[in-house]
Amino acid sequence: MIAYHGHILFTKTSESFEVLPHGYVVVDDRGVVAGVYSQHEWQARAEIEVVELGNRLLIPGMNDMHVHAPQLANMGIAMDMPLLPWLEQYTFPEESKFADIAYAKHMYKRFVKELVKHGTMRAAIFATIHPEATECLADQCNEAGIGAYIGLVGMDRNCPEMLRNTVDEVVAGTERLSAHVAHYPLVKAIVTPRFVPSCSSDMLRAMGAQAAKEELMIQSHLCETPNEIRWVKELEPTAASYSDVYHSYGLMNDRTLMAHCVYPSERDIELLRQTGAMVVHCPSSNCNLGSGIAPVRQLLEKGIDVALGTDIAAGHDLSILHTMHYAIQMSKLVYAESGREVASLTLPEVFYMATKGGGRMFGQVGSFELGYDFDALVIDDAEMINGQACSEEELYLRLERFIYVGNDRQIVKRFCKGKEIIVED
Amino acid sequence: MIAYHGHILFTKTSESFEVLPHGYVVVDDRGVVAGVYSQHEWQARAEIEVVELGNRLLIPGMNDMHVHAPQLANMGIAMDMPLLPWLEQYTFPEESKFADIAYAKHMYKRFVKELVKHGTMRAAIFATIHPEATECLADQCNEAGIGAYIGLVGMDRNCPEMLRNTVDEVVAGTERLSAHVAHYPLVKAIVTPRFVPSCSSDMLRAMGAQAAKEELMIQSHLCETPNEIRWVKELEPTAASYSDVYHSYGLMNDRTLMAHCVYPSERDIELLRQTGAMVVHCPSSNCNLGSGIAPVRQLLEKGIDVALGTDIAAGHDLSILHTMHYAIQMSKLVYAESGREVASLTLPEVFYMATKGGGRMFGQVGSFELGYDFDALVIDDAEMINGQACSEEELYLRLERFIYVGNDRQIVKRFCKGKEIIVED
Repeated sequence: MIAYHGHILFTKTSESFEVLPHGYVVVDDRGVVAGVYSQHEWQARAEIEVVELGNRLLIPGMNDMHVHAPQLANMGIAMDMPLLPWLEQYTFPEESKFADIAYAKHMYKRFVKELVKHGTMRAAIFATIHPEATECLADQCNEAGIGAYIGLVGMDRNCPEMLRNTVDEVVAGTERLSAHVAHYPLVKAIVTPRFVPSCSSDMLRAMGAQAAKEELMIQSHLCETPNEIRWVKELEPTAASYSDVYHSYGLMNDRTLMAHCVYPSERDIELLRQTGAMVVHCPSSNCNLGSGIAPVRQLLEKGIDVALGTDIAAGHDLSILHTMHYAIQMSKLVYAESGREVASLTLPEVFYMATKGGGRMFGQVGSFELGYDFDALVIDDAEMINGQACSEEELYLRLERFIYVGNDRQIVKRFCKGKEIIVED
Repeated sequence: MIAYHGHILFTKTSESFEVLPHGYVVVDDRGVVAGVYSQHEWQARAEIEVVELGNRLLIPGMNDMHVHAPQLANMGIAMDMPLLPWLEQYTFPEESKFADIAYAKHMYKRFVKELVKHGTMRAAIFATIHPEATECLADQCNEAGIGAYIGLVGMDRNCPEMLRNTVDEVVAGTERLSAHVAHYPLVKAIVTPRFVPSCSSDMLRAMGAQAAKEELMIQSHLCETPNEIRWVKELEPTAASYSDVYHSYGLMNDRTLMAHCVYPSERDIELLRQTGAMVVHCPSSNCNLGSGIAPVRQLLEKGIDVALGTDIAAGHDLSILHTMHYAIQMSKLVYAESGREVASLTLPEVFYMATKGGGRMFGQVGSFELGYDFDALVIDDAEMINGQACSEEELYLRLERFIYVGNDRQIVKRFCKGKEIIVED
């Protein structure tokens, strides 16, 4: 047993932070939280080694619930291009390079390193259509020690020939991926149809059946832009909504992650609610592509779970910490631009999304409550205190300043399920 | 004479980048650009020492044209509070601390260090109502070697008693400040009425007269929110527009910087155009406060000059580099949210605003053209190339990735008017 002694902050609910100045989190040998104590409750025990974190902050690890690993090379470039030329000139050519396993290994190693550097301990990841490269991504996540859902992408229509697979290939590839990761403790396969416009009915049906049979997680995109929604309507004219297409093939349930939902219809919202599917809000991506601002407040009020995703390379940054402040900022602009009275998102709300909210999809992840996996980050913000002493009441403000102004430099230790994750130079 | 040999990027116009792979910028002994050469045009000369920058990028220094120095301590905290309680609980109490000269010296030293760290070589800065502290800020800028307009703030109504000065105090204080900085090569006083709601007619009239008499620069706030505009209308019912109030007191001319302009009326736009006043766009501030998105495209089309400002602590970040990508991102949301067909801002456009656009207010600043002050940053992005080699045609993409994903770590050298500016640890 080991105890970490520092300033502890986490969110049990999205209402407010739990703040334990000079508190203790006890972690058992399985890497699971065995207790959390305030300074006054704590009683030293011989069998518990104490790791002193001093004036540093201890927070849960970040969960990036929507990210495209093969687009690392395109992160932060050609951001002012329109979507379609950008896909043709950057996204598709880059993804096609992952047919080369040596290239895949090189880039995925770099991707996982960058992910870890920014404090992400669990991620739901899109790979490409290439089974070997996708297994290589799973290997890299496992070697690094982080948790991940790895998706072999299915796409068999409306996409370049070089990035097309068949129904049989994606089903067999996902089965092979599942077998490949069977002994990896924190890495699993996730059924990953790219989105309705690039997947035939046969493909969606087969992927839905596979997800049901093996109780696999599912991830895709939903209602990102008005043009995309019109396109889905043309392709699937009998469906009552975009999400109904996924639903009719068994792809909407409480193991489903749907990225974006910037323009959900009433029917989409109802179906998300009924099925328990989780929305992954990707605010930096939505603003880089000019997609718009997702109605997160409305989704939350309907009882829909919302997590956060960086969505690189449409998102420009692999930091879920930065994604939090983008989520707040975008929520404020909804009000300013629409004139509607919408309460903007609060810091505990977005922190909850980034930790316990998304973490639910990995089990008991994203909190320091009893029984939760000890995923954690140690934050050394000494250089950021701006010349002012901070009282214990101000720990919440220190966390906030780190989220708005900080970066990976302040993350000095990382843990996933109790094990320290080292970033190699 | 000295020549810097590296990958040179700058903007003569907002249309496109000048890109000189392995180019040379020659700087004379006054710190002024004496020539810029492509690799092929260059001919070595004995009297010119060459500084090798290798594969690094050389770009102009950043100009932050709207920033509140005394709000450093509030940067990145309490960002989800509504504006009025935030001003009362954070902004005003912090500004009042600058009556204490020791505190001012400590915090302004830290502010200037942070500014320099993020690559800002020139800034237009709001201080507080305290003359001694404001002179101390001027001293710190001069010692660091950066260029600055330093504003003693005038405010005599609708503000807390402790932060109020009189007409005589602000006029005498600015005069004293001007005398204090008379021998500083790059630091000057700027006439700084906070904004119409906190300045009486007498104060605005006296400050306008002072600006005219001594040909001083002027800075203030304009049309940030609808509530503020309604308030100005109540306070000054006979003025044709918000900017007409400033104009009637001699505060709108080609030496004027007006921050925000999120909601300018047709009349405001016309007056900005006629007088040659410059708008300072502060996109991160506007989204943190939920103010809205300034109509930058429309202002540019009317021929109004636009520069960029971080506006801390409403802005959360002292980086003009980050402010550039916020400007692009916000411009994309205008279209998404309004449905209007507005071309989003391009990277050369925002880069121009951050360099030559704002730089105009300091003389020939913000470009590597002949006769311009050599303000420059050396960018080492080797760690950011994401495992890929970059061809010379891709230098523009390297700059873009640095702007979107990078931070002060990649800025390895800084120059203001030819002199290297050192960031002390």
